[in-house]
Amino acid sequence: MPLSSRHLLGLQGVPKEDIELILDTAHTFREVLDRPIKKVPTLQGKTIVNLFYEDSTRTRISFELAEKRLSADTVNFSVSTSSVKKGESLKDTIKNVEAMKVDMIIIRHSAAGTPYYLTKICDSNIINAGDGIHEHPTQALLDLYSIKERFGKLKGLKVCIVGDISHSRVALSNIFGLKTMGVKVSVCGPATMIPKRIEELGVDVIYNIDEAIRENDILNVLRIQLERKAGEAFPSLREYAKYFGITKERLDKNGKNILILHPGPINRGVEISSEVADGSDQIILNQVTNGVAVRMAVLYLLGTLN
Amino acid sequence: MPLSSRHLLGLQGVPKEDIELILDTAHTFREVLDRPIKKVPTLQGKTIVNLFYEDSTRTRISFELAEKRLSADTVNFSVSTSSVKKGESLKDTIKNVEAMKVDMIIIRHSAAGTPYYLTKICDSNIINAGDGIHEHPTQALLDLYSIKERFGKLKGLKVCIVGDISHSRVALSNIFGLKTMGVKVSVCGPATMIPKRIEELGVDVIYNIDEAIRENDILNVLRIQLERKAGEAFPSLREYAKYFGITKERLDKNGKNILILHPGPINRGVEISSEVADGSDQIILNQVTNGVAVRMAVLYLLGTLN
Amino acid sequence: MPLSSRHLLGLQGVPKEDIELILDTAHTFREVLDRPIKKVPTLQGKTIVNLFYEDSTRTRISFELAEKRLSADTVNFSVSTSSVKKGESLKDTIKNVEAMKVDMIIIRHSAAGTPYYLTKICDSNIINAGDGIHEHPTQALLDLYSIKERFGKLKGLKVCIVGDISHSRVALSNIFGLKTMGVKVSVCGPATMIPKRIEELGVDVIYNIDEAIRENDILNVLRIQLERKAGEAFPSLREYAKYFGITKERLDKNGKNILILHPGPINRGVEISSEVADGSDQIILNQVTNGVAVRMAVLYLLGTLN
Repeated sequence: MPLSSRHLLGLQGVPKEDIELILDTAHTFREVLDRPIKKVPTLQGKTIVNLFYEDSTRTRISFELAEKRLSADTVNFSVSTSSVKKGESLKDTIKNVEAMKVDMIIIRHSAAGTPYYLTKICDSNIINAGDGIHEHPTQALLDLYSIKERFGKLKGLKVCIVGDISHSRVALSNIFGLKTMGVKVSVCGPATMIPKRIEELGVDVIYNIDEAIRENDILNVLRIQLERKAGEAFPSLREYAKYFGITKERLDKNGKNILILHPGPINRGVEISSEVADGSDQIILNQVTNGVAVRMAVLYLLGTLN
Repeated sequence: MPLSSRHLLGLQGVPKEDIELILDTAHTFREVLDRPIKKVPTLQGKTIVNLFYEDSTRTRISFELAEKRLSADTVNFSVSTSSVKKGESLKDTIKNVEAMKVDMIIIRHSAAGTPYYLTKICDSNIINAGDGIHEHPTQALLDLYSIKERFGKLKGLKVCIVGDISHSRVALSNIFGLKTMGVKVSVCGPATMIPKRIEELGVDVIYNIDEAIRENDILNVLRIQLERKAGEAFPSLREYAKYFGITKERLDKNGKNILILHPGPINRGVEISSEVADGSDQIILNQVTNGVAVRMAVLYLLGTLN
Repeated sequence: MPLSSRHLLGLQGVPKEDIELILDTAHTFREVLDRPIKKVPTLQGKTIVNLFYEDSTRTRISFELAEKRLSADTVNFSVSTSSVKKGESLKDTIKNVEAMKVDMIIIRHSAAGTPYYLTKICDSNIINAGDGIHEHPTQALLDLYSIKERFGKLKGLKVCIVGDISHSRVALSNIFGLKTMGVKVSVCGPATMIPKRIEELGVDVIYNIDEAIRENDILNVLRIQLERKAGEAFPSLREYAKYFGITKERLDKNGKNILILHPGPINRGVEISSEVADGSDQIILNQVTNGVAVRMAVLYLLGTLN
């Protein structure tokens, strides 16, 4: 049974069967990553273009490794050395890249909706690697995979997403994916960082972090995006850390083991203390490893659909 | 019958037989590009270095894809992260790169004649990817290929190149290639953009764009290179667009179907209107696709010559 | 007999048997580089990450070509487009990269000791591509290889390293490697550029360049690193060139053939004249070619050790 869509734009509206298929396929590739030879010939002769209009390390390298381990040919395109400087429109750039007979385009862009727009002008499979504050579906899929890997299931678990929910594409993709899989989802953060009417997505809002810890099985701790002036939404980093930072003391005080996820990069001492970030409750580096497997699964499923 | 030269520096003086061989070979590779697996093992174990001293998207990616689809190993070198910053001379940089046992060098440089200079100091095959305002032979070859693809022939056709002829390496390479293939070539643009004595190349000069449309089968519309201060050669972009811009009205007024080529990136509303750039008379994206096939042909023919 | 270490951090303390094994293995790969197909499948399915925190052309490309010719998958990481900008610590960056199931990390960093630090936090094989003013072991190994290629031996030869010894990782790695192989090593340069107590490394200090020429078989002429304000250690470049620059006149005056090495990039007319840099006594470009073979050997020996 193939995926129900040729693209991966977000997790909103993606059926449960698709998510299960991706997670099951990722499980196979996760085993490949532990082999001495971490490579399969699946996408040999296919061309994948990584179009990153925003700087990125882990997501770009994760996709690039996933592509190479599927034996695809990859081309990286970054804005800094491109004809975007010459005033070319996004549409013309994309149409030109695709005219070179590309099979898939991985796109990261600061404008929400860019991946959707690409599906209207391209024949390639489009994979969203993060569009503005909209969605980042492969991140949410790797979060789901990592939770399922630990608990053996998703359904019935309770996840709280902590941080700047308003500006987080990771949060939104997680909410869609987790809800579809039967997870009870809540969000926690300063009132200035919680979107109005988020309850309409079927999500509880918790303003107290201690309550969030006590009532959930998993915390997905978001990065405070200092480079995007997230700091403007609260008085100081110190105040954020004091009221919402996840520390060993806070976890101990609430007397409960809770699984800690974080999409990275970490601001140590801000949203998470070093002790927790490196401690036994977190699976942050597992998430990174699983990210490659999940991306291999998505590329494989879309690439062999055509 | 192999090519008569080990290098592709320009189309000046390249014999008709060589151009025909490249176009015929490109035709084979153009079919490879429509296969699910767009890859052949021809240049496996060969190393090709892309030395781009000027920013580029489409030409660099086009070469890189051509190289990868021939299974060559590729290395990209861009000036911004290189020892050029440490004051190394071009000659020393090139000699060092070549000492790493490279087979071919693709060079783009702002100084006319750089590719020729490389042939004097290197053993590698040198391919010019654009040198200053001198030549850009693979662009002209893909233009020739695209015209031949549409008309089934080249000989006897009439092509007018429109725009800033004085500063265009695309124009010069087109003139040499088209003339060799028996095409009647004219140029059209403001007097300030037409080189003196261009007639000596066997080219007609037309100052009126309507006349150019009426008297030709094909227009090759050049990009007004705003980033190179091309604007200094005429009062305003609006004035250029008014007198030389290719619009639907202008084409209709002259009551004639004419094939439109453009090397890209397009300045929509300046040298070409969006209606024409996206219309049925243009083959701009075909040119991009054919560019990969033509570059595969050149790499293949030079790479298997050694 | 395998190497005695999983990493190559420097040549200090590396046993003679390891160096001999690397040089012998490099000899095999040096022959591969002269074949039409310069590629072997040895590291297929292995992933190597090139983490360059300092700009580099020749070392980065040399490693990249070595990796590709061993059929490894390679990922390049440069600081300019990375999450380092987002304030991530070196440790977190490295741990994240490694979590993507990498086999080897090539690291260049301005801080001495960074490669050693990586061995404490990583499972990957770590290869030092230059750490501050500490070591640059593959450069020294290629120097050793190049000397042995010319003389058929190392033991008993006399090498003088000329230039800014105090700030040169090339000098330090050469001293360790050469001494281990039984070479008599001296250094020559302005007193301001010779570290105090360097004699404790078993090295002679010569302040007069003519004496250095007369008493040695090989000069390894270091680059005056203008970009690192090396110029502050002496009154002017002209004065440096006058007293320590290697010129044809100076070599002739001392009436002796002497082999000239230089790690590049060259400052022509400063530490070496163009006549010498391009002359018959130097093997500067041989060093570059041998560098690829030596790096292939190191990658192969470490990569098949696991």
